[in-house]
Amino acid sequence: MTVQTSFNPRNGLVVPAPPSDSPDAIDAVVAAAAAAAEPMAAVPPATRAGWLSAIAAALEADAEPLAALADEETALGLPRLTGELAGAARSLRFYGSVAAEGSYLQAAIDHAAPGRPDVRRVSVPLGPVAVFGASNFPFGFGVLGHDTASALAAGCPVVVKAHPAHPRLSARLAEVASRAIEGAGVTTGPFGIVHGFDAGTRLVSHPAIKAVGFTGSLRGGLALWRQAATRDEVIPVYAEMGTVNTVVVTASAAAERGAEIAAGFVGSFTLGMGQFCTKPGLLLVPAGSGLAEETGRALAAAAPDGWLLTESIADAYHAGLDRLAGAGGRVVTQLPAAPAGWAAPPTVLAVDAAALTGGSPLLEECFGPVALVAEYESEAELASVLAALPGSLAAGVHAGEDDPRLAGLVAALSKRCGRVVVNGWPTGVAQGWAQQHGGPWPATTTPWTSSVGAQALSRWVRPVAFQDVPEAALPAALRDDNPWRLPWRIDGVME
Amino acid sequence: MTVQTSFNPRNGLVVPAPPSDSPDAIDAVVAAAAAAAEPMAAVPPATRAGWLSAIAAALEADAEPLAALADEETALGLPRLTGELAGAARSLRFYGSVAAEGSYLQAAIDHAAPGRPDVRRVSVPLGPVAVFGASNFPFGFGVLGHDTASALAAGCPVVVKAHPAHPRLSARLAEVASRAIEGAGVTTGPFGIVHGFDAGTRLVSHPAIKAVGFTGSLRGGLALWRQAATRDEVIPVYAEMGTVNTVVVTASAAAERGAEIAAGFVGSFTLGMGQFCTKPGLLLVPAGSGLAEETGRALAAAAPDGWLLTESIADAYHAGLDRLAGAGGRVVTQLPAAPAGWAAPPTVLAVDAAALTGGSPLLEECFGPVALVAEYESEAELASVLAALPGSLAAGVHAGEDDPRLAGLVAALSKRCGRVVVNGWPTGVAQGWAQQHGGPWPATTTPWTSSVGAQALSRWVRPVAFQDVPEAALPAALRDDNPWRLPWRIDGVME
Repeated sequence: MTVQTSFNPRNGLVVPAPPSDSPDAIDAVVAAAAAAAEPMAAVPPATRAGWLSAIAAALEADAEPLAALADEETALGLPRLTGELAGAARSLRFYGSVAAEGSYLQAAIDHAAPGRPDVRRVSVPLGPVAVFGASNFPFGFGVLGHDTASALAAGCPVVVKAHPAHPRLSARLAEVASRAIEGAGVTTGPFGIVHGFDAGTRLVSHPAIKAVGFTGSLRGGLALWRQAATRDEVIPVYAEMGTVNTVVVTASAAAERGAEIAAGFVGSFTLGMGQFCTKPGLLLVPAGSGLAEETGRALAAAAPDGWLLTESIADAYHAGLDRLAGAGGRVVTQLPAAPAGWAAPPTVLAVDAAALTGGSPLLEECFGPVALVAEYESEAELASVLAALPGSLAAGVHAGEDDPRLAGLVAALSKRCGRVVVNGWPTGVAQGWAQQHGGPWPATTTPWTSSVGAQALSRWVRPVAFQDVPEAALPAALRDDNPWRLPWRIDGVME
Repeated sequence: MTVQTSFNPRNGLVVPAPPSDSPDAIDAVVAAAAAAAEPMAAVPPATRAGWLSAIAAALEADAEPLAALADEETALGLPRLTGELAGAARSLRFYGSVAAEGSYLQAAIDHAAPGRPDVRRVSVPLGPVAVFGASNFPFGFGVLGHDTASALAAGCPVVVKAHPAHPRLSARLAEVASRAIEGAGVTTGPFGIVHGFDAGTRLVSHPAIKAVGFTGSLRGGLALWRQAATRDEVIPVYAEMGTVNTVVVTASAAAERGAEIAAGFVGSFTLGMGQFCTKPGLLLVPAGSGLAEETGRALAAAAPDGWLLTESIADAYHAGLDRLAGAGGRVVTQLPAAPAGWAAPPTVLAVDAAALTGGSPLLEECFGPVALVAEYESEAELASVLAALPGSLAAGVHAGEDDPRLAGLVAALSKRCGRVVVNGWPTGVAQGWAQQHGGPWPATTTPWTSSVGAQALSRWVRPVAFQDVPEAALPAALRDDNPWRLPWRIDGVME
């Protein structure tokens, strides 16, 4: 057992945290998850919706102490954390409702016909899932965040690797969830947690783990993805790794509401001290619009303050500032950092768009309250920059009233990202049926999936067909009387 | 340019085939596909259904000479090849109809509400797809097979790597398809073909290629999968790699209709000279049932003859027979091989089920007309064998009237495969909406997808969300008047 510690980002003070788990302890948690897989898969999705509601209610019941503990470990502030907890509770219920609706199982029946067998298909849970939550959303993408909630909803036991940025909160959240699930009458535990770096690598290689969910850095996500590829049975790693999310400002928008755009941009890229995977890291503005300077003034006026989550994020932030400056980024405005703890000086840099060539360090994410304003000289230069952008989670356009270029810019950006926002900012990700949170490599390892919204469930299941299987031997989901009340596609037609 | 040759498996005779393409020629084919990607994605899916119908009609119009050419290169026989061509034409039309129906695009709209933006999602084609067809189905999984048809239907240009087992047929099929598409009024070519081994590796590494479809051996599929993982932008490789597909016979079935099962088994595992990815390679029978000997007699009675597709497949077949014998397989019956060409002696081996432990060579695929009959001593032994099976495309059970063990066996097999067949054989794969052709690693690299059936289209698209995008800048698929007539999910409810 290795001693772990929990840090207060405001002052660097240390308190003891749950120790790292031993290999035997990790295996025991995985074994419990494996034992829960079969009974859990047999439970109707609507029943699991009840479990998720119970977890949501338990979260809400403990909201105040949980948010306070999260604030001690993350310094993200009580208002933000209280709101995030409420959102996580809503998400838990939402994923339960998606499970209960049942479309995610893609049930279909092709009845027998002359020369054709009876074929029925339904998706089945993959089995135990390892979830690696993010540092920056201790509730939304943490122990009980989108990956955990969608995997439980889809019928997969979950083993969470606690994040070292908030180990005490992680342990508390696991207790809250376990108690709530037991209270809902579930006796075998579909939920477990492990602590320590080695626990993560052990999980990803464990034969009983059948999929991995990850939210975090490019380096961390790719490491897990590479590790999983060396298994005897390779498993999917759904890694959402963050990106530079580009927002374009057209000449008409700059003319109509430059100051408003600058202020909105500052609000978005400094939200949560810039620690959002959907942070707009790059603003493309017309040369001569003055928007770089306007953004600098808006940053000075907003005067955001706060701390980064961990010492290593703070170190990486300072290294990232150096990298951006070294690649030609000109500091427009830099505010003083907080005087103690994991401080970060909020910064706006400017550059000519011509510098944004493929492979440029200017197009690498710098996690924290910094953004780059790049000035384009012509529509042609803008188009060539957009064509060379690496894949991203989101992107945006600000356009003036009836700007004829808007459709073309939306189309161009949609080729390089998972979500395009018009006249707004990408930071917020609305929960819902139409949401897509994902994007082309390297924003995610699996651009065809989403880690937020109804589609998130489909990551944790695979389809199985049953050919000429008699009624009594079919899984419940496919029996003629449809006991799970699933939407069915019968002989090609949705019922 | 390297000279390529086409072999006649019946006698090993050689005729010249289209030469290997130069790197420049390959790049030109890919560039044409890349240029076609954007216009093709903008075409309504129902229009692409028309293109696929045109290709299907062209196939049918040339059925006789195409089947004859296929027979020269594969020795699979005219009746089988004529039937396979007809099936491929039906599949082309089916994938077109799936595209036109539009569900595969998963269009959804979450309307704006207080505090929530308008979010709309639709899937978009990935871009140019490289297709590596199989040796064993020159029509069904060849140049115009499931991968090509589903990718074209989904709006992706296709570049096929011609299979060296039938290079002349591949070239002819490409001509047929190109002419048909031009006849359908498509001026930029969404379809191309390249020849030669190096063409395959060049395709997989080409930055303009956005996905790979593969049907073939485990070794070949994993090689492409590994290569794609080294790209700057990693792309999905949908590799369907074949497997040992296990069929269980219960004591009741053996007692009721042992001879019928033995004859059916022989018919299935020798179909196409055993060159099916869905071949039942392993029959688990009760010890003392006499089914191993019964199967041997059925093989002798059926006396199948024919040739393997290539010299390397013939070499691998003989090596596989040695491997099975070396691992304890006892030859029950072995028929003489054809006297010339790529011959193969049809063979039944028997073994105790206890020998089927994890990692045993007995559980490795041997492509060709051989099967293993394994005798289990008890239900417990059967259960432990089933739990240790590697992932497979399909599996089956033969059970007697009202056998109470059937449901448990179907459930156990469904954990290790993509399709379970009761009282039948896995060789045939019916085209349809409910079909699932795929299975757990290493049967496929992507067990959550299917390479046959309506779900095949979803491999070639990814979702994009549009947030607060004005009507005029939305893609056609998401405009309020629904010009593509897609099934929509509106605020969570299917319309």
